[in-house]
Amino acid sequence: MIAATPEPPYLAVIFSSQRTPGDEGYGAMAERMVELAREQPGFLGVESARDAEGFGITVSYWRDEAAIATWKAHGEHAVAQHLGWEKWYASFQLRVCRVEREHGKGGA
Amino acid sequence: MIAATPEPPYLAVIFSSQRTPGDEGYGAMAERMVELAREQPGFLGVESARDAEGFGITVSYWRDEAAIATWKAHGEHAVAQHLGWEKWYASFQLRVCRVEREHGKGGA
Repeated sequence: MIAATPEPPYLAVIFSSQRTPGDEGYGAMAERMVELAREQPGFLGVESARDAEGFGITVSYWRDEAAIATWKAHGEHAVAQHLGWEKWYASFQLRVCRVEREHGKGGA
Repeated sequence: MIAATPEPPYLAVIFSSQRTPGDEGYGAMAERMVELAREQPGFLGVESARDAEGFGITVSYWRDEAAIATWKAHGEHAVAQHLGWEKWYASFQLRVCRVEREHGKGGA
């Protein structure tokens, strides 16, 4: 679902990843992380899509750098990051960006 | 596949969309647009994932605003944008961002 973000500027974290085969607890943890992210101060929204080959993109939107730093350091999230590195992701890239402008059709 | 982008800063265009049902020529046009984008000056890479429910995220990476503007105005791309608005996308949001930092594991 398209996130209903406020007027730019705000920040986006683009997380692109290739999953390893098998679930290995990933699905439940991914759901929990979205639930937890939504409770964080400065969280603005999240969008996520993963294809049948296990390649996925999750974009989370944040008010400022402090919000991103707090979320990155969250204890439960830190455990998930570690497991992601160790077993869930064959490869990933995380990009922190400043959203400068946007437009769209419906939904957001 | 994770795009092998250069050191930041560079620009990212996050295109989040919900497809309408049925193909209606979308698949072929989407492939053609990626092929064409790769030929554009200032193109740095592209990543794309769409789930079984038709929600997708495509992120394209660009050297600068001039590269984005030239691609936006490309004739064949303009036709695709029009068809996207008219029939392929129930909703979409396009966000232009400046990538400030990144890190990852493998692949990129």
